[in-house]
Amino acid sequence: MFKVNIGKKILSANEEHARKNSSFLAEQKKLCLNMISSPGSGKTTILARTITELKDKIKIGVIEGDIKTDIDAERIRATKAPAVQVNTDGACHLSAVQVSRALESLPVEDLNLIFIENVGNLVCPSSFELGENGKVVVLSVAEGDDKPAKYPGIFAKSKVLLVNKIDLLGAGVQVDFDIERVKADVRKLNKDIEIFKISAKTGEGFTGWCDWLVKSVKALG
Amino acid sequence: MFKVNIGKKILSANEEHARKNSSFLAEQKKLCLNMISSPGSGKTTILARTITELKDKIKIGVIEGDIKTDIDAERIRATKAPAVQVNTDGACHLSAVQVSRALESLPVEDLNLIFIENVGNLVCPSSFELGENGKVVVLSVAEGDDKPAKYPGIFAKSKVLLVNKIDLLGAGVQVDFDIERVKADVRKLNKDIEIFKISAKTGEGFTGWCDWLVKSVKALG
Repeated sequence: MFKVNIGKKILSANEEHARKNSSFLAEQKKLCLNMISSPGSGKTTILARTITELKDKIKIGVIEGDIKTDIDAERIRATKAPAVQVNTDGACHLSAVQVSRALESLPVEDLNLIFIENVGNLVCPSSFELGENGKVVVLSVAEGDDKPAKYPGIFAKSKVLLVNKIDLLGAGVQVDFDIERVKADVRKLNKDIEIFKISAKTGEGFTGWCDWLVKSVKALG
Repeated sequence: MFKVNIGKKILSANEEHARKNSSFLAEQKKLCLNMISSPGSGKTTILARTITELKDKIKIGVIEGDIKTDIDAERIRATKAPAVQVNTDGACHLSAVQVSRALESLPVEDLNLIFIENVGNLVCPSSFELGENGKVVVLSVAEGDDKPAKYPGIFAKSKVLLVNKIDLLGAGVQVDFDIERVKADVRKLNKDIEIFKISAKTGEGFTGWCDWLVKSVKALG
């Protein structure tokens, strides 16, 4: 009882900031996507390639969430896109107020799309709305095909599932990953989710994902 | 201030239960290891192979922590070892009181070693002591070599680092993983940590890890 009430207060303070972010982004007509996954599923590599592939079509900025270091923001800046690093100093997810402050440091007016790369964690970030238009969950094939069944929350809430590192499948090593099992388990949780199979290393599958982004940016007008 | 105080209360209630578990395990002279990693780094596969390789030397039981499903406990039971599944229903880590209850369901007197497989999460479980003798952190090479720098907490606190899925290195696919960088970053955080490179799929490197377990069990008398 005690823990639940406190949890509710923290969540509702966060939701208030999330609503402010959401209103600001809607006024500015900017698409904002919150990218969530386990550590090491390839979020930053996906973003770097997405920015490069779309550089003549849409302008992308990134808010990078990490417990420590600015390794990821540096990797994004290497693509010439603007990036703001937020260090949570131990916290397991980004909060809406951290995103509010980060948005003030980005040249939002020059951008079409803002990605928030959340702290690597398949559990906690799914409970904290940041004011985004949608969540993108990333699952690397190296993590195994049982993850939607075992961590259903984020798969139920996401607009897009990116199945990454498909270059590891059937490449001389044995990776046990049944994509049909993943699709079936995810569809049970979320029938409308878009699923793209990609390799951020080779670029395979990026056409579908990038077309979806361009279409979603245009839909905002 | 508000959040910090509440956090302290939750942590101190947990620590009380952790101390009880620790006393119980010390009286019984049982080794207990708390295994922590990202989702999909291979914890359950490591445990299943460890149990099989050590079946004539030490008796192992497992407490399986997951948000949902009993997939992992079933995989352990397939090796004939006793396993208790704890479902956290959304919580991102196991708590000491959950471990107390699970210990009551295990035939502790018949065992030498109890593994606790925590919820797949590289952040939150490192803050909650369960009464264990030590933590074992698992990092899969597919997750990348920047994880100790980005998620230092668990690497600083662990007795052992298992670098898993080394079969993916140099096997016809390109996995960017510099083991020397990992070792250097981890040693900066924790100079006494034991590091074993393993493949739970092929069994490579298991001799060193299993010898360490046998030695640690014997050290308890």
